[in-house]
Amino acid sequence: MKIIVDAFGGDKAPLEALKGCRLAIDAYGVEIILTGDKEEIIKVAKENQISLDKMEILHAPDVISMHDEPGEIMKSLSNCSMAVGMKLLSEKKGEAFLSAGNTGALLFGATFIIKRIKGVKRPALAPLLPTDTGLYMLIDGGANLDCRPEMLSQFGLMGSIYMEKVEGINKPRVALVNIGEEKTKGTQLQLDAYELMQKTSYNFIGNIEPRYISDGNCDVAVADGFTGNVILKLSEGLAMTFYKNIKGIFLRSIISKFAALLLMPGLKAFKKKLDYTEYGGAPLLGLTMPVIKAHGSSNANAFKNAIRQAKKCVESQMVDTISQQISMQRIKDE
Amino acid sequence: MKIIVDAFGGDKAPLEALKGCRLAIDAYGVEIILTGDKEEIIKVAKENQISLDKMEILHAPDVISMHDEPGEIMKSLSNCSMAVGMKLLSEKKGEAFLSAGNTGALLFGATFIIKRIKGVKRPALAPLLPTDTGLYMLIDGGANLDCRPEMLSQFGLMGSIYMEKVEGINKPRVALVNIGEEKTKGTQLQLDAYELMQKTSYNFIGNIEPRYISDGNCDVAVADGFTGNVILKLSEGLAMTFYKNIKGIFLRSIISKFAALLLMPGLKAFKKKLDYTEYGGAPLLGLTMPVIKAHGSSNANAFKNAIRQAKKCVESQMVDTISQQISMQRIKDE
Repeated sequence: MKIIVDAFGGDKAPLEALKGCRLAIDAYGVEIILTGDKEEIIKVAKENQISLDKMEILHAPDVISMHDEPGEIMKSLSNCSMAVGMKLLSEKKGEAFLSAGNTGALLFGATFIIKRIKGVKRPALAPLLPTDTGLYMLIDGGANLDCRPEMLSQFGLMGSIYMEKVEGINKPRVALVNIGEEKTKGTQLQLDAYELMQKTSYNFIGNIEPRYISDGNCDVAVADGFTGNVILKLSEGLAMTFYKNIKGIFLRSIISKFAALLLMPGLKAFKKKLDYTEYGGAPLLGLTMPVIKAHGSSNANAFKNAIRQAKKCVESQMVDTISQQISMQRIKDE
Repeated sequence: MKIIVDAFGGDKAPLEALKGCRLAIDAYGVEIILTGDKEEIIKVAKENQISLDKMEILHAPDVISMHDEPGEIMKSLSNCSMAVGMKLLSEKKGEAFLSAGNTGALLFGATFIIKRIKGVKRPALAPLLPTDTGLYMLIDGGANLDCRPEMLSQFGLMGSIYMEKVEGINKPRVALVNIGEEKTKGTQLQLDAYELMQKTSYNFIGNIEPRYISDGNCDVAVADGFTGNVILKLSEGLAMTFYKNIKGIFLRSIISKFAALLLMPGLKAFKKKLDYTEYGGAPLLGLTMPVIKAHGSSNANAFKNAIRQAKKCVESQMVDTISQQISMQRIKDE
């Protein structure tokens, strides 16, 4: 299996991407097509003694920065590492694409180059976040700020298929993010989405208050992209602030440092639980091929896990299943 | 100064309310008017040896439950502890009102009984939440799910006045909650609100991403009530999950319990930082008199601090200042 990786996406490009690809090739037996500045890739690989065995490089000297407007990607289609990667995917030179670059550009480009599945209203960004008992998918995490009820209902379907196929969860519990549990809560968007979601074939469990998401009470949390992005960024920010505070407590004195040592096994397990690099990246759901957005600050481990995730997307035929279910839904609706 | 307290609001009514009132009277020299079932209040006070000195009781046998629809309060105006309290406030029998009861009913009732300040578009619920360096006000925390840009701009003004007058912060930094820092980010609501907020006299510092709120980068975070409620409840949920996990680490073994003992001072300080009972309640801003919504699960300490907060609202003439500034703004706009 060939996975296409944008070697110049993310804050630590291309070194961490290269390291992650190496780890993934050795662990999962995949092949990689790297896109980016060929000379630079070879130089960095050499300096860091990373073997490029089973990695093919496609030269693409330009990079979309984190601050570029999404539209910029269209202007530099022929030369930037992200766009070249997506073009390769659309030509079926590889089976999935992975980038840690600018999210807006990736969404914008993917919709134009890789295209939506027929019947999908809008592709969604669907990050996986830790809960007390495992993880949940947040969909939409920020691709579509303004949503219609039918979009939310479809996000639920796509998220459910992903969690079942890729994460192996039986009948994923799909919930609508809302300010109360009762079906009379929320704005018109939530009221209408609730009605639609009740009629679907997936396991819709009703509204979920954000208070209970981190307890692990749902597998898929559906929200419009504005709300979803707020949840995503607030979760990251609070986890960081908490962790910093706990660390501060441990570093107060020699005694507290000693106590921290005693607690090390538990703390490590907890840190791992919060660590996004363990979960891979955020799939873009609704596209005709698997595309994964890795975190902008991805390290080698995050790249490795995102490649594993891309491989699972391909093997499980997640995209085909979404496509079939969406077309079944369309026939039912007509 | 007389503060009116709904003795039957909250999960632990009336005992914790009574205890909190006693603590507040002794600490701050206020007088209290309690509303609720007189016989029950006297009985509970006696059983728990709480002196009712400087507490007046106004008999109101009914209670609005947490599950009642807000409209219910209007039907039972004459008899329920919350409505009787608000009626007393509107008749100036006391100077501020405090309840830990049903938020929707309180908002609904306060708008009808205590009334809005002239020129205020909508009263807002404005909880105070902990940051790494202190606290910030979130406005609106859930009173108005659908907002217009002018409402958000006004929330910024009211929040700024509160934080300056009651919390003593010089030129409070008011920020608009958004999915990015650039002024081009967000839905039409955020785009339009940004424009309006830029032209105000308060210290508008632009957009804030939820990722950075808990760092203490703003004093007032402005959002529509849906987004605000999501932030409020997600913050509470994540803090709880986080704390539970840390506690779990400490309770794993005898060694870890010993380590926890060594860390106790730091942990206590951290827990206090996260503890909402320290901050008082959420003021309802935009009303003609100070009204405080205490947390539903308020204990004696939370009631005590909410009474201190109510006292500060009165002393600082927070309401008058909002009223003056709103009318100045209206003259400017005309």
